[in-house]
Amino acid sequence: MSRRGQAVAVLVEDGFDDQELTGIVDGLTTAGLEVVLVGPLAGRTYTGRHGLATVTSHMAPGAARARTFAAIAIAGGYAPDRIRMRHGLVDLVREAVAAGRPVAAMGHGAQVLISALVVSGRTMTCWPSIAVDITNAGGLYVDRPVVEDGSIITARKGDDLPQFVAAILRAIDARGAA
Amino acid sequence: MSRRGQAVAVLVEDGFDDQELTGIVDGLTTAGLEVVLVGPLAGRTYTGRHGLATVTSHMAPGAARARTFAAIAIAGGYAPDRIRMRHGLVDLVREAVAAGRPVAAMGHGAQVLISALVVSGRTMTCWPSIAVDITNAGGLYVDRPVVEDGSIITARKGDDLPQFVAAILRAIDARGAA
Repeated sequence: MSRRGQAVAVLVEDGFDDQELTGIVDGLTTAGLEVVLVGPLAGRTYTGRHGLATVTSHMAPGAARARTFAAIAIAGGYAPDRIRMRHGLVDLVREAVAAGRPVAAMGHGAQVLISALVVSGRTMTCWPSIAVDITNAGGLYVDRPVVEDGSIITARKGDDLPQFVAAILRAIDARGAA
Repeated sequence: MSRRGQAVAVLVEDGFDDQELTGIVDGLTTAGLEVVLVGPLAGRTYTGRHGLATVTSHMAPGAARARTFAAIAIAGGYAPDRIRMRHGLVDLVREAVAAGRPVAAMGHGAQVLISALVVSGRTMTCWPSIAVDITNAGGLYVDRPVVEDGSIITARKGDDLPQFVAAILRAIDARGAA
């Protein structure tokens, strides 16, 4: 099936991991998907933690409906620490999970899943510093490059980018084919 | 009683909040206490998240015994995300709590308390992004400038520095007078 006309929301805030966000956006775009950057405000520029990448948000969460996206992706770095305090972005994640849309988080991105209260009972991976937070939220932490549990896809770190993007594409295509 | 001869261990790693670490060190030193900077390695330089402050560690955790310190303090920023992955530093915090020494954490510093497994049943405050992690760890999160629960002292952010340092000094003096 064609991926044309399908869009993935990628959540952005200051402090994202430059390599991870760039890799996710490039991987999805190359695969034929539209990427919509959703940040706290529309049309604002956000900077990576290493200052190597800047992105401009297309949309604020108030204008975003989870059902219009084929998936939601969250890069790691320190942006998730900010994203998890933005109710609109956290609500978008929760709505996407409730609607069965694939939600994919890399590294510290899993912090947003904790704040969206969607971790309990799930097997997940993440950056090791927050493994205890996943466990305390009722999740089962495992140290594997990429973990898929239902519609939730998680990865440890930037090294896992190829497998992470491949898992997102598989999940989108599986929904499209269903 | 005199504070002379008493030392406070301040935990350091890259990414500490510049204002918070500087404020804690200055406040304790001005009050007559010795400050010992304990980092993953001795004699290494660590840089604040804003690049405004650098510090050189005096000691690695392998050389530090919790009972030799009058208290332990942890600044916020992104250093706690690194400190919580250093088993030696986390063990030092756990030993200090077990020994009844005051342990004080500001902002994200509470992440280290989560990893040290000392949060359950405690009333605490922290930077709001991690309030859910405190709750999931069995703590009771409250939004107050400084919270003292037994030997554990927590504060929200840099604005709370004067009250935070005052609480550490009170706890040290109370132990000395006991």
